[in-house]
Amino acid sequence: MDWGGTWTRTAVINRQGEILWQAREPNPQNGSKEEYLANAEKLLAVAIQQAGGPVAGIGAAVAGPVEPTTGTFYQPPNLMVLVGVSFKALWEKAFDLPVWVGNDANLAALGEHHFGAGKESADNGRPVKTLFYVTVSTGVGGGLVDKGSLFLGANGLTAEIGHTLVDTSDSALACQCGSRGCLEAMASGTGIERIAKQKLASGGFSDSALAALNIDSVDSAAVFDAAEKKDPLAVSILDSAVSALSIGLTNVVHLFNPDMIVMGGGVTDGLVKLDLLPRIQQGIRDRAMSELHKEFQLTTARLGDSVGLAGAAALVWEQLGVSN
Amino acid sequence: MDWGGTWTRTAVINRQGEILWQAREPNPQNGSKEEYLANAEKLLAVAIQQAGGPVAGIGAAVAGPVEPTTGTFYQPPNLMVLVGVSFKALWEKAFDLPVWVGNDANLAALGEHHFGAGKESADNGRPVKTLFYVTVSTGVGGGLVDKGSLFLGANGLTAEIGHTLVDTSDSALACQCGSRGCLEAMASGTGIERIAKQKLASGGFSDSALAALNIDSVDSAAVFDAAEKKDPLAVSILDSAVSALSIGLTNVVHLFNPDMIVMGGGVTDGLVKLDLLPRIQQGIRDRAMSELHKEFQLTTARLGDSVGLAGAAALVWEQLGVSN
Repeated sequence: MDWGGTWTRTAVINRQGEILWQAREPNPQNGSKEEYLANAEKLLAVAIQQAGGPVAGIGAAVAGPVEPTTGTFYQPPNLMVLVGVSFKALWEKAFDLPVWVGNDANLAALGEHHFGAGKESADNGRPVKTLFYVTVSTGVGGGLVDKGSLFLGANGLTAEIGHTLVDTSDSALACQCGSRGCLEAMASGTGIERIAKQKLASGGFSDSALAALNIDSVDSAAVFDAAEKKDPLAVSILDSAVSALSIGLTNVVHLFNPDMIVMGGGVTDGLVKLDLLPRIQQGIRDRAMSELHKEFQLTTARLGDSVGLAGAAALVWEQLGVSN
Repeated sequence: MDWGGTWTRTAVINRQGEILWQAREPNPQNGSKEEYLANAEKLLAVAIQQAGGPVAGIGAAVAGPVEPTTGTFYQPPNLMVLVGVSFKALWEKAFDLPVWVGNDANLAALGEHHFGAGKESADNGRPVKTLFYVTVSTGVGGGLVDKGSLFLGANGLTAEIGHTLVDTSDSALACQCGSRGCLEAMASGTGIERIAKQKLASGGFSDSALAALNIDSVDSAAVFDAAEKKDPLAVSILDSAVSALSIGLTNVVHLFNPDMIVMGGGVTDGLVKLDLLPRIQQGIRDRAMSELHKEFQLTTARLGDSVGLAGAAALVWEQLGVSN
């Protein structure tokens, strides 16, 4: 299961990471805790039925921080009614199957390691030891896989690259988390939109095509479109995002020493289209303290929208000790 | 063995981390590779003899990056003649004992976890899951212990907090690593000394007691002494160092989610004397993205000069699977 802020997706996945069946349903609108839970159980029951044979376990990726041993939601920003719910205990009782729950960005890292970019590298004779995954989308999140397993730290709240500081100046932008200068404020879709709107509102960008738009329709997609046409304002906003990602990932390289960095999410797709990933890689290499720290592959996610489902499945296989 | 840039220390340590015997000798001055190696073997032979009984293995902490499986020196800044030497292979042959080698800051983390601040917390009923150690001394280094073992990443070059970026402004200070704005440039003993000298050379600090000193005698100790007497220049330099440490450790908290941060090294001793550690802790807490990220203990190293030796011993016991 991949339980997001808007959709809940379910799938039957084998140990090779192949999706044998899948479905997706919108979450109840402003539902009660009971409605959410009943809906989730119903979807899981359908998936188990669709498996049509023995099921090894249930894995779930959830959009928010989660305690890794009990699978308890801490403070899910989009699903606050579910605070404190332990999915693991609930579903193990309901389905008589082992259950594991993880944060969606963490599990995306695990999915890419076992079934995506990491697997591809291994198949090409270059197995990955330490994989850092970053999703640059509405927000910015991450996950770290070391020797095939998730790195979870003390409370499962690791790899939060979106809230590492990449602007320490007095003019650093405020972040939704309450701090300032976070990577998420500079490089997320929401951040790019906010920066564009602020710049346009401040005036002085009449040469930009973005100034001709209704300000309400200026979003990160509009910025990417304009940058493709070399619009100077749009290009400068994305230059800052690229620089911010380079700084954040330099810190990741020095702290985690990964041999692979995988970038996913909608903003990454836009950066790829503009061929900006090599600039991010160069920005990290320019700042790296040693040649060995530069020995990482920087690549894009392979699993698209299925990355959360794949990661949830990878968690089950990893916890059961079954390798593909 | 703790093989530093200047001294080589050896000790006999039991599985409780107690030092039963120890010695220390200066390294050969500008010695050849052969002189260094002969000296190290002689010191190890003496230590093994002093053990006066069965020896479980040899652990060595070395001042520089080291490949964790072969114990090969990469590019040790102070011992360049030893590049490419695999201590593990060499000494396993010479002594017929298992050998493990690690970076000194990494092993200091392991030492503090098993025999220092981590052990003390565990003895008080609060076992540590994820311990980040930072040494703030001539340079700034670190180590990360998760569930009792070192986190080594792809090449053993992890936890290099000294070269994470804590100043992204245009006026960021150059770092010895070639980059700019690194924590080491702002908060290390060398960095504090350089900043003080630059400020004094630029003039305009005639009210500072530091300006009355011969500029060659201005070092980090002089800055700490002056700060104790509320010297405004010295206080402002240390304020910047505290801020830089808060930023660097905030990134550590968001990426590693530790439940304990241990600070060691001579500069830390100076910060403790001025009661500045609570300000670092508050600086991290102010920027932390969630309440759970704030749930870490910030404390000082317990093992002093013996931390490298203790860490080397902890590595042997950990690798042999022997718990204390």
